[in-house]
Amino acid sequence: MQSVIDVNLPQNRYEIAIVPGSLDNLGTWMNGKESKPLHLGEKVLLVSNPAIFKRYGERAIKSLTNAGFEVFSVNLSAGEQYKTLNSIVKIYNTALENRLERTSTIVALGGGVIGDMAGFAAATWLRGINFVQVPTSLLAMVDAAIGGKTGVNHPKGKNLIGAFHQPKLVLIDPQVLKTLPPREFRAGMAEVIKYGVIWDADLFAKLEECEKLDQLRYLSEEMLQTILTHSCQAKAIVVGKDEKESGLRALLNYGHTIGHAVESLTGYKVVNHGEAVAIGMVAAGQIAVDLRMWSKEATERQNELIKKTGLPSKLPEGLDIGEIIDSLQSDKKVKSGKVRFVLPRRIGEATVTDQVPPDVLRQVLLQMQ
Amino acid sequence: MQSVIDVNLPQNRYEIAIVPGSLDNLGTWMNGKESKPLHLGEKVLLVSNPAIFKRYGERAIKSLTNAGFEVFSVNLSAGEQYKTLNSIVKIYNTALENRLERTSTIVALGGGVIGDMAGFAAATWLRGINFVQVPTSLLAMVDAAIGGKTGVNHPKGKNLIGAFHQPKLVLIDPQVLKTLPPREFRAGMAEVIKYGVIWDADLFAKLEECEKLDQLRYLSEEMLQTILTHSCQAKAIVVGKDEKESGLRALLNYGHTIGHAVESLTGYKVVNHGEAVAIGMVAAGQIAVDLRMWSKEATERQNELIKKTGLPSKLPEGLDIGEIIDSLQSDKKVKSGKVRFVLPRRIGEATVTDQVPPDVLRQVLLQMQ
Ligand SMILES: NC(=O)c1ccc[n+]([C@@H]2O[C@H](COP(=O)([O-])OP(=O)(O)OC[C@H]3O[C@@H](n4cnc5c(N)ncnc54)[C@H](O)[C@@H]3O)[C@@H](O)[C@H]2O)c1
Ligand SMILES: NC(=O)c1ccc[n+]([C@@H]2O[C@H](COP(=O)([O-])OP(=O)(O)OC[C@H]3O[C@@H](n4cnc5c(N)ncnc54)[C@H](O)[C@@H]3O)[C@@H](O)[C@H]2O)c1
Ligand SMILES: [Zn+2]
Ligand SMILES: [Zn+2]
Repeated sequence: MQSVIDVNLPQNRYEIAIVPGSLDNLGTWMNGKESKPLHLGEKVLLVSNPAIFKRYGERAIKSLTNAGFEVFSVNLSAGEQYKTLNSIVKIYNTALENRLERTSTIVALGGGVIGDMAGFAAATWLRGINFVQVPTSLLAMVDAAIGGKTGVNHPKGKNLIGAFHQPKLVLIDPQVLKTLPPREFRAGMAEVIKYGVIWDADLFAKLEECEKLDQLRYLSEEMLQTILTHSCQAKAIVVGKDEKESGLRALLNYGHTIGHAVESLTGYKVVNHGEAVAIGMVAAGQIAVDLRMWSKEATERQNELIKKTGLPSKLPEGLDIGEIIDSLQSDKKVKSGKVRFVLPRRIGEATVTDQVPPDVLRQVLLQMQ
Repeated sequence: MQSVIDVNLPQNRYEIAIVPGSLDNLGTWMNGKESKPLHLGEKVLLVSNPAIFKRYGERAIKSLTNAGFEVFSVNLSAGEQYKTLNSIVKIYNTALENRLERTSTIVALGGGVIGDMAGFAAATWLRGINFVQVPTSLLAMVDAAIGGKTGVNHPKGKNLIGAFHQPKLVLIDPQVLKTLPPREFRAGMAEVIKYGVIWDADLFAKLEECEKLDQLRYLSEEMLQTILTHSCQAKAIVVGKDEKESGLRALLNYGHTIGHAVESLTGYKVVNHGEAVAIGMVAAGQIAVDLRMWSKEATERQNELIKKTGLPSKLPEGLDIGEIIDSLQSDKKVKSGKVRFVLPRRIGEATVTDQVPPDVLRQVLLQMQ
């Protein structure tokens, strides 16, 4: 069982390979096929965090060494609070000590935090060296590792510092998800549901077939493979058509407008990203219903999936609705004062609009308290 | 008297305008023509250093404000030793305080140090915002401001951290050179001579016409305009054909192989970049003569220009030749152990080779002690 998805960008073309057990063949994958070698140089810098490295580092290194690479590694402290320029400097220092060259490769082994940072270091060391993603969280597999966005946080705002830098390969080994904490699994599932709603009715139907979705162990290997393949495909297509986020890519923000507000107003502590996105999707779905853009039945099917995944559909307690609305105004996605929402039209299709009347928005949020 | 040079890159197209007095029209230039607006947003962050800002900041701001831009500014400490990530953070902080948007523009007003840093901040703030170069040193005008290389130094090596990020406009006002210290002027002239040797025989001939070249005041306005235009054109063409430095762009390293070694071995203190490049060109010229690739007469004409510009042709005292040769081996331009040299073939034409016998190199360096 293996899927390979092509990402076609004007200047870059690479594969997302979803292959159970592939961590042990990372080196071979990085060499590429004989007919299509990847040219990833001799030196590889593996970037990870201590917890993930402890579980999977050795296997990655062994496979890389066997394939002929000279491997160095650096571990960054785990957690979003370490997604900073200081961590990037740690990567730079290791790159320098080991004399990485323009032809060398940085490999990210970890969740989205590690992927974003390793990618940013790769984008900016020697003005850009090769980069390979080995995502280990569900969210990183279906979202963060695809699309070339890299970066770190500024003390006063998330992902404000960054660059576009496409990987040369994304290698996904679904088996590593076995050790992912369930809450992180559910966070990734929120993005999967998102793809179902905005892009892929087939994926949505598959998710509906599953009896339970709140833990990995309820999914068959086939189902997991299907979910990963459909999700990666959705993101790859959208990104391929709109690398630098001018139009289509905005669809990926479904659930994220209100989601971001909820996350930041609760200090990124009460709900995680996926939970916030789930709340945002419930809200956006209802807005779409109220605007007669989407059917009540469809939004209920969406909300059922969210529930089955163990994700929240209500606003966290104590959150002030006025504050949410204020926060939306200052969001990055605001253009000329109007808040832009992604709203579903039918399952598998969505649209962007800045025509949501303030009272509709307020009414929906009130219902979700 | 004004020249406008088109830079044609696959994804980017912009103009280098060389116009005396244009600093007072920066805002108008940034608006673009009615038929071809530049779309540089509303907010502008002007990046400079205290000395340059004191001389030219007000005029730039006034012109921008008059043209309808909302202007903020930040001054970074002057000098190569401040070309660091810390200075970039200072730009980020100002960008955040003033809520720069994806459509906003960072303007570099200064020499190559300011240009490289402002460009890197523009490359990485919000994953890339607009950037405009207003170079004020001769070196920045003819070299640093063109080509999209941006970045900062790592404590252990120059320009190791960076990104490619093309400006939307390069606006050159030759009049600001009047306040440039003479030694900085001569440093820029080294690159001008370089273009004459590797690319532009006309430019070379023009330089030969000048009686003196070691100070700006010996140049007529016309001659200065000619020198700037030819130099910018040379760099623009080379960069246009080879944006990411795979082939042709290597020619621009003429004089830089040995030059870099000399600079770094003397701790960037004894000779400045242009002086080191001059020494490197004298050496490369002689190597080419010894290899029968270039005529003795031509190398003498080159060396005469270098002398007339008040640039050195001998190695700094006390420099060990063995050390220079060792340092070449560890240079970024080394591929598989062989040092790559750019060598002239005739005036206006050069080639890249890694076939310089070690004893020829040593002999030439010995003669230059
Ligand atoms: N670049 C993009 O396009 C993009 C898109 C979405 C999100 N992101 C970024 O991704 C980040 C979130 O990613 P995330 O949700 O993966 O968070 P994360 O990287 O912090 O990982 C979550 C936790 O799971 C652990 N973990 C990861 N894989 C594991 C495994 N296989 N076994 C055991 N533990 C494992 C991590 O150590 C971490 O503690 C955010 O910083 C966000 O900004 C980026
Ligand atoms: N990006 C590139 O492609 C590229 C190419 C070549 C060099 N560079 C970089 O450029 C830098 C060197 O640039 P530089 O030679 O302009 O040095 P610089 O920026 O330090 O300027 C030299 C000095 O002249 C002063 N100065 C500049 N313009 C002036 C003016 N009009 N009047 C009075 N004083 C003025 C500056 O304040 C500074 O003290 C290096 O960091 C080098 O790495 C980059
Ligand atoms: Zn998300
Ligand atoms: Zn130079």
